[in-house]
Amino acid sequence: MPELRKDPIIGRWVIVATERARRPDQFANPVRETVPEKPCPFCEGAEAQTPSEIYAIRTKNTPKNSPGWDLRVVPSQTPFLKIEGELERQGKGLYDLMSGVGAHEIVVETNQHIGNMSDLSEDQITNVITCYIDRIIDLEKDQRFKYVLVFKNYGFSAGGGRVRHARSQLIAMPINPKRVKEELVGAHEYYEYHERCIFCDLVKQELAQKDRLILEIDGFIAVVPFASRFPFEVWILPKKHSCDFVSLSADERKNLSKILKQVLLKLKVGLNDPPYNYIIHTAPFRRQKMGYWRTINDDFHWHIEITPRLTRIAGFEWGTGFYICPVTPEAAAKFLKEVTIK
Amino acid sequence: MPELRKDPIIGRWVIVATERARRPDQFANPVRETVPEKPCPFCEGAEAQTPSEIYAIRTKNTPKNSPGWDLRVVPSQTPFLKIEGELERQGKGLYDLMSGVGAHEIVVETNQHIGNMSDLSEDQITNVITCYIDRIIDLEKDQRFKYVLVFKNYGFSAGGGRVRHARSQLIAMPINPKRVKEELVGAHEYYEYHERCIFCDLVKQELAQKDRLILEIDGFIAVVPFASRFPFEVWILPKKHSCDFVSLSADERKNLSKILKQVLLKLKVGLNDPPYNYIIHTAPFRRQKMGYWRTINDDFHWHIEITPRLTRIAGFEWGTGFYICPVTPEAAAKFLKEVTIK
Repeated sequence: MPELRKDPIIGRWVIVATERARRPDQFANPVRETVPEKPCPFCEGAEAQTPSEIYAIRTKNTPKNSPGWDLRVVPSQTPFLKIEGELERQGKGLYDLMSGVGAHEIVVETNQHIGNMSDLSEDQITNVITCYIDRIIDLEKDQRFKYVLVFKNYGFSAGGGRVRHARSQLIAMPINPKRVKEELVGAHEYYEYHERCIFCDLVKQELAQKDRLILEIDGFIAVVPFASRFPFEVWILPKKHSCDFVSLSADERKNLSKILKQVLLKLKVGLNDPPYNYIIHTAPFRRQKMGYWRTINDDFHWHIEITPRLTRIAGFEWGTGFYICPVTPEAAAKFLKEVTIK
Repeated sequence: MPELRKDPIIGRWVIVATERARRPDQFANPVRETVPEKPCPFCEGAEAQTPSEIYAIRTKNTPKNSPGWDLRVVPSQTPFLKIEGELERQGKGLYDLMSGVGAHEIVVETNQHIGNMSDLSEDQITNVITCYIDRIIDLEKDQRFKYVLVFKNYGFSAGGGRVRHARSQLIAMPINPKRVKEELVGAHEYYEYHERCIFCDLVKQELAQKDRLILEIDGFIAVVPFASRFPFEVWILPKKHSCDFVSLSADERKNLSKILKQVLLKLKVGLNDPPYNYIIHTAPFRRQKMGYWRTINDDFHWHIEITPRLTRIAGFEWGTGFYICPVTPEAAAKFLKEVTIK
């Protein structure tokens, strides 16, 4: 019998199609699109091919936009939003619009031509995390912005383009994305009723129940969510309550790097290097001004959502918000748990 | 300057990336995946290859599951939900689940091996619409169901599988899909404030403003929505207020068939036969029992959303509900308006 499962945070129902279910190992060969690689503008030595750098981790005394760096942030060459201009809002009859001000930055995670973040060292991944935090803190100073979306598209069918050089993206925006709002509202309603953070409860239940738990490392857990939309979806959550990704201490960054690398390696080894996306879900800026969102510090709990691209998403899924997951979260978790990495 | 536009019904912001924008004719060659076709189980004569028919439009006196039909409905061979069983709800700690009862039916739209619904006659499409209505009315009798999702996946990358025989799907489910709920809530809030249906206002504004209007035919309009998520997204709306697709009269069904065929032909001719999905958004069953949803008859307005698959959807889009549309709705509407069909 298939099951309908409800995401406890935003209330989305998902069909876990046990009847149609495939065995986890049947996903190990994702449809691979072979696209010719383009010359890489992100390698050391190619600095002139990107816009001028905003941030870098560099060997002392090496000049900006020249070799000698480990990590580099540059503006997107084809930005979705523009940094210049006033934030203007207007109505057009029924409709609302806003000028598209924002920032769109590319975090080049290594000076070498390595594609998958799983193959970076823990120190390199720690640098990436620190860079995210530094850039978010800097972008928060711009009063026009409400949120910074931090995400990664790896592989062509995950939107990673035709250059296989590990990088992530930051988009600072004058609005809160819909899904972030829904999580804030859902977590708030739960808190109002229970006086507890829903994510803290989720962490406790997953640790006790264990059947969706993949890893538990130094203050973090990696789980397949109970109502996962996609096969092998993985969430990484800190055990310690905090709404804000930016609050991570130096040690916590190292530990996050460790668990993130292990999850990404398990996906790579177990599922034959699939395309994937991850998104950091953290609290918005300026939350003291936000009406009932003033309780976000208590309600919300930052986390990372990682979604491999192993199936085609049918149109009705994004048209209805109603997903069908062809593998049970428990089977996916068991499979990933058992993948051995060196 | 890019624009941020807000969907007036559910409040989702979309970036209309004018800077990255491509000209509409640049979309005319969608990435085409050539997959070998499978033998067709939906052609006349192959009736034994499907489960027993639930509904058919047939020549008089031809027996069930034999040739002599124009349209046929059969249960899905690999159903997402199962028709047998009790609807049981249970909690598991934090989580809620439900037995996956439901119906999953395939509407085979023609006895000939034609792939795109655009190539059926208006009478055939009228039959498909009548069939949807008859099946929805029948499924509503089952007290376990709250909603019937009617949709079409055309083409491999839209989830249409490896058989190019025009068909659509119905899924009867014991829940309301998230997006449907959001539309009901958004439309209700608008009605509470304005005492007008938001969709009626939208129809009026689009008819007056004209720059997103593709077609106006006998009581229906086809428009590119103001905050469209995808290039060349098209909505078909009845000008007459009605929350319920099932209420269409015989004449209205014919007129809907006419506009639907024209829109699908314009997509086919103008954009080189792209994969697409459509979904019928209609009011849920048993709405008299639904608390503030008791006003659905006034608030809500059924419509069809058609979304060609012309771009890759990056993971952060379905992870955040935050979309980037690379062509302006006005340019898309102008392009489709100018496509001439015989």
